[in-house]
Amino acid sequence: MKSPSSSALVSRFSALVGPGHALVEAADTARYLVEWRDLFRGETPLVLRPADTSEVAAILRLAHETKTAIIPQGGNTGLVGGQIPVPGRQEIVVSLERLDKVRSVDPLGNSIVVEAGMPLAAVHAAAAEAGRFFPLTLASLGSCQIGGNVATNAGGTAVLAYGNARNLVLGLEVVLADGRVWNGLRRLGKDNAGYDLKQLFIGSEGTLGVITAVALKLHHRPRGRAVAFASVASPKAALGLFCRAQRSAGFGLTGFELMSGLAMDFALRHLPGARLPTTAAPWYVLIEVSSSLSDGEADAVALDVLAGATAAGEAIEAAVAQSLSQAEDFWRLRHGMSEVQKYEGGSIKHDVSVPIGDLPAFLDEAMAAVEGAFPGCRPVPFGHMGDGNIHFNVSQPEGGDRQAFLSRWNEMNAVVHGVVRKYDGSVAAEHGIGRLKVDLLAEVKPPLDLEMMARLKDALDPLGILNPGRVIRRP
Amino acid sequence: MKSPSSSALVSRFSALVGPGHALVEAADTARYLVEWRDLFRGETPLVLRPADTSEVAAILRLAHETKTAIIPQGGNTGLVGGQIPVPGRQEIVVSLERLDKVRSVDPLGNSIVVEAGMPLAAVHAAAAEAGRFFPLTLASLGSCQIGGNVATNAGGTAVLAYGNARNLVLGLEVVLADGRVWNGLRRLGKDNAGYDLKQLFIGSEGTLGVITAVALKLHHRPRGRAVAFASVASPKAALGLFCRAQRSAGFGLTGFELMSGLAMDFALRHLPGARLPTTAAPWYVLIEVSSSLSDGEADAVALDVLAGATAAGEAIEAAVAQSLSQAEDFWRLRHGMSEVQKYEGGSIKHDVSVPIGDLPAFLDEAMAAVEGAFPGCRPVPFGHMGDGNIHFNVSQPEGGDRQAFLSRWNEMNAVVHGVVRKYDGSVAAEHGIGRLKVDLLAEVKPPLDLEMMARLKDALDPLGILNPGRVIRRP
Repeated sequence: MKSPSSSALVSRFSALVGPGHALVEAADTARYLVEWRDLFRGETPLVLRPADTSEVAAILRLAHETKTAIIPQGGNTGLVGGQIPVPGRQEIVVSLERLDKVRSVDPLGNSIVVEAGMPLAAVHAAAAEAGRFFPLTLASLGSCQIGGNVATNAGGTAVLAYGNARNLVLGLEVVLADGRVWNGLRRLGKDNAGYDLKQLFIGSEGTLGVITAVALKLHHRPRGRAVAFASVASPKAALGLFCRAQRSAGFGLTGFELMSGLAMDFALRHLPGARLPTTAAPWYVLIEVSSSLSDGEADAVALDVLAGATAAGEAIEAAVAQSLSQAEDFWRLRHGMSEVQKYEGGSIKHDVSVPIGDLPAFLDEAMAAVEGAFPGCRPVPFGHMGDGNIHFNVSQPEGGDRQAFLSRWNEMNAVVHGVVRKYDGSVAAEHGIGRLKVDLLAEVKPPLDLEMMARLKDALDPLGILNPGRVIRRP
Repeated sequence: MKSPSSSALVSRFSALVGPGHALVEAADTARYLVEWRDLFRGETPLVLRPADTSEVAAILRLAHETKTAIIPQGGNTGLVGGQIPVPGRQEIVVSLERLDKVRSVDPLGNSIVVEAGMPLAAVHAAAAEAGRFFPLTLASLGSCQIGGNVATNAGGTAVLAYGNARNLVLGLEVVLADGRVWNGLRRLGKDNAGYDLKQLFIGSEGTLGVITAVALKLHHRPRGRAVAFASVASPKAALGLFCRAQRSAGFGLTGFELMSGLAMDFALRHLPGARLPTTAAPWYVLIEVSSSLSDGEADAVALDVLAGATAAGEAIEAAVAQSLSQAEDFWRLRHGMSEVQKYEGGSIKHDVSVPIGDLPAFLDEAMAAVEGAFPGCRPVPFGHMGDGNIHFNVSQPEGGDRQAFLSRWNEMNAVVHGVVRKYDGSVAAEHGIGRLKVDLLAEVKPPLDLEMMARLKDALDPLGILNPGRVIRRP
């Protein structure tokens, strides 16, 4: 039940946005309070939908004055619960969805300035309209928003050649915790005039400021592409093949995915029409080569790689897709892997990375470790070998008890994270910390790191009103 | 004359490093106290040469306890005086030169970990020994050290394809202002576990921490290269050619330099054996295309670009170098430009950048502005068009008074910076702020930016002992 002061607060905040954009009814707020994995269910006195940066600033000014917790929300696609308001804490959700305009586009200068609430798919479309290409690509493309992508330093499938979100940001506009607007919307390739302040807000998950606009770097879409598939004996062989592919393709290597035999079995079992392009093997690799010149050039590079790999014994068998439709078939096998795990019972997820050179050893040890601790469990690793980021998912024993398996989620995580830490890897490679991994972060990071983060938080949000308790604990 | 307490301090600091590594005699300290441009001459009670990170940490612990200003120094190649201790302020120089080891190299994982005092040329050699390539390349290659490169976010000639120093850093080891060692030496392609703390120390010019080791990203050296030269009518035509080159070469475009007619005249006049490869024109462009596959492939891309450009009227005449020696001749013309300005009298420098799309307008306006304010002066712009970073240098009027011209340096800077700011550019594109541009930075940055920088400084160096007065004013 709301206290009188709380209702007054709701009124004051509501007055800052237009009619219909201050939501309190359950029917209206519901979609902001549930997230994909259903690990967190939120409660909030109010969801605000500001129209523009000045309304966001006004909200933050009032939040600062009244010490009200603010939860910025983009497309609500986050996988670690950061965007879901905590029940009982009177946290106000500020949705950036209406800040969805293109502010300016500069094709010759390869940059575009967009507002934070623009869906990533719309950013792609705007870039294409300008004859350019924005490479950041995630599964949640149609719903996630660019502000959230930047706040979480999203990775996705194009990191190998184009980098994470951080690499694609030229400038930011950010509303600070006290409501002042920091204008860092530069579009420069080189700028060493003072501290690079925008770096603070990239990947800090909305805990240091609220991103309202982004200046993004655009690229030219490669004119040619080749997709290849190879059967390999082991992750070690795959690593040799990766090295060869990099040497021959350089920046043209735009995809290098590793898939375990079991992950492939799942895909073949459950994806309609799925077929193995090469001979059955313990592991498989999918390679994508792009060329700025032509398909023919990309094919030439891919063939050069595969021929060398087969001759050297790195690949057991390999094939380059002969048509666009065949190339799509190859990729469909890989993309389908995430989907099909649900047909095989409970699946425990991890979001980990290790230095690429340590991937083979990591995979061997992690698979052995989980099989030892959970007899009969079925590890199905697959993912971006080129980034050192493998989706190390573990399916329940075949025919086993789903709930019993899932109830040991944390225990499985601890086993896998133990191996990750041995290789000085990351326990939150792509999805960040949010609320889900705050305790884990405090466990894996040295006290000095936590202290430095706390100092930054204190410098930029001394009242602790921006996404409190996300990433780092409340003081 | 040193006070007793100051001598005691010198003794305490000297005891932290080995014999022969605590320098007080003028003959020993001289080389740490003068810099290339001779704008700053330093004085110091002591130059320390620690052997390793633990000695650096001990020095900072004592500095923290005694509130002693510490001036970290790498190769002493900085162009804005940050590394030169201020006379009368008892600033102690800490040279990183003895921290010059390779700690580890991981060719399969494309990374190397080196200590901060390693000369950049030695980093190049270590990468080559591992069958890889470290792309960061500056004129001061033989003397500058990697720690300084990272602290200043160095750019150089390879930024277009490979990015600034920031893009090449995977992890850092930093000694903080209180002497604690922050170990952030990760080698991961994807890591979103908490705030990306290393970003604080890149480009903050030693004012937030002392870098002692760096984990760097390595690349594969492209197997092929083509160098082309074109005569063009204007910067606008050059920009069209740039766009075309990017579309055809993509990431293979590893160089795109713009040179004014007058800059070329200077080069032809003063470089022995220099010849124009194409017809005389108001402006010239040098293009470098790299290929991971072969020289032939690079040539094909370059020819594709030049053919299109000539047909479209973007280039008046163009040529691809037919041999390695001819390619080197082309590059020699461009590299020689910096050198030859000294034969034409006084030259006033700028370190500026604007958004690439605005370069033509910027050049027109800036040239007109300086010619208006300094009749007879000779602007000689040339540089990295692809980064929006042109060396906008202005030579004195032919036969004019050198001293009278140079005495108006600040006035010329003000004229040029005025145009830069109109295009929301940078007044310190590559070389940073140091001591030279502290007042300029305070003039061009909004108060909010300066406040945010001060808050970061306060959070990480509350006593203000790390490079005080560099980048931002002492409080």
